[in-house]
Amino acid sequence: MPVRPDDIALAHRLADAAGAVIRPYFRRPAGLELKEDRSPVTRADREAEEAMRRLLDAERSGDGIVGEEHGVKEGVTGRQWVLDPIDGTRSFTAGRAIFGTLIALVEDGWPILGIIDQPVQRERWIGVTGQPTLLNGAPARTRACAALEGAIVATTSPHLFAEGDVPHYLALVAAASGGAPRQGPVYGGDCYNYGLLASGHLDVVCESGLQLYDFAALVPVVEGAGGRMCDWNGEPLTSASAGHVLAIGDPARADDVLEALHGAQGHEQGHEH
Amino acid sequence: MPVRPDDIALAHRLADAAGAVIRPYFRRPAGLELKEDRSPVTRADREAEEAMRRLLDAERSGDGIVGEEHGVKEGVTGRQWVLDPIDGTRSFTAGRAIFGTLIALVEDGWPILGIIDQPVQRERWIGVTGQPTLLNGAPARTRACAALEGAIVATTSPHLFAEGDVPHYLALVAAASGGAPRQGPVYGGDCYNYGLLASGHLDVVCESGLQLYDFAALVPVVEGAGGRMCDWNGEPLTSASAGHVLAIGDPARADDVLEALHGAQGHEQGHEH
Repeated sequence: MPVRPDDIALAHRLADAAGAVIRPYFRRPAGLELKEDRSPVTRADREAEEAMRRLLDAERSGDGIVGEEHGVKEGVTGRQWVLDPIDGTRSFTAGRAIFGTLIALVEDGWPILGIIDQPVQRERWIGVTGQPTLLNGAPARTRACAALEGAIVATTSPHLFAEGDVPHYLALVAAASGGAPRQGPVYGGDCYNYGLLASGHLDVVCESGLQLYDFAALVPVVEGAGGRMCDWNGEPLTSASAGHVLAIGDPARADDVLEALHGAQGHEQGHEH
Repeated sequence: MPVRPDDIALAHRLADAAGAVIRPYFRRPAGLELKEDRSPVTRADREAEEAMRRLLDAERSGDGIVGEEHGVKEGVTGRQWVLDPIDGTRSFTAGRAIFGTLIALVEDGWPILGIIDQPVQRERWIGVTGQPTLLNGAPARTRACAALEGAIVATTSPHLFAEGDVPHYLALVAAASGGAPRQGPVYGGDCYNYGLLASGHLDVVCESGLQLYDFAALVPVVEGAGGRMCDWNGEPLTSASAGHVLAIGDPARADDVLEALHGAQGHEQGHEH
């Protein structure tokens, strides 16, 4: 069933509402006019989610909501709005406008609409099942990648991998960089990296430890731009994937990426969770 | 001797000229209208440096020039302009507007003026000896940092440290994060991190392998904002420091940072280069 235009319009309004809350907190000195000892990022996160929930309660009262800050509201429609007001809180805190607001609409367990919104630089990627991904209204496409060696790999931080995942991640990095540190991975970026991949600026994003609210919105954005989202075994992402997320701009490189991650052990033995 | 106002004005015009060259290449697909098999970042880098050199040749013909792309021009005045058109080429290539153009004026071996310019977000930090650092014309100040634990540490990539430097870097990270990965370092950012530190959004930047053209511009920006720039032994930065660079927003934390880097061995034995 195609995504309803009024759901797309509402998703944009949710992102608008979150951005209006978040922008004044960005680069606001900690402690300035803040009560209750809460950091600007905490306040921006909570208040942006509240703003989105108010809209959803008013206009989609039967839909469920999964939010990072305020938890789960059960719905009756089989549809859920999955919200992460600030993905990339470290970047937000450090004054870097490469964090994002994530909004997904999940139907029968599958994300059919996703938004990655950068409210300071005012960049918004939207992906909708069956439609091309748009960045600020213009089509976004992943780029071709002729070989894994030379591909640009991105991840937020190597410290976020569980210990058992690190060798796999480093094997992927080595295959892509050919061992040259200056050609190594691009770090930082959180959800913003998936938008950049959708627009053809990055080739692979590799992460682990992501929650549903971290990755649901990314799937329609990346896939609507021609890329592939899967777990570290090449399977579709589910909550049971333990957040082992791959975004691959050129689906023709998927086997190379999986082989590099798992080496001679084969995919199935690659990680055990 | 105070920095001459016409040198400050010229430095701004150099940054303007570099930015005008760089912006059209940002997020331009590789290969599009590019000849001679050069990447957009290579062309932007070279052409931006050429634009700056043309201005300097015309207006400061006696000054020396040290550029990342076009090498050294000897001068006769004891003054050198140190240029790095795109510091952060990986971020540039990945479409992230957190790279920067670096411009320094060095007199008798010491940087007396520095600019960090982000041409896409149009953010410009300028530091001048004896004057407060400015971000887009408004004073920038580092922030107080009550304790190293909880401080935000930034560095571009852990893969850029030489093998012998890694344990020191990780010891600093552990001291700052208290061992919590989600509180770990902020990665990516190159010169942009030093601007963010000058504006009070980061507490420590720790890097190694930097060249003169990577760090000369950073010194006046950070110090004019109240921070401290030094090498990993707490000494002033020179070309002989082997590029072991520390920026510390709150100088009261300098001893803590040096102790964390070098542990029980003491500062002097901490690294041998």
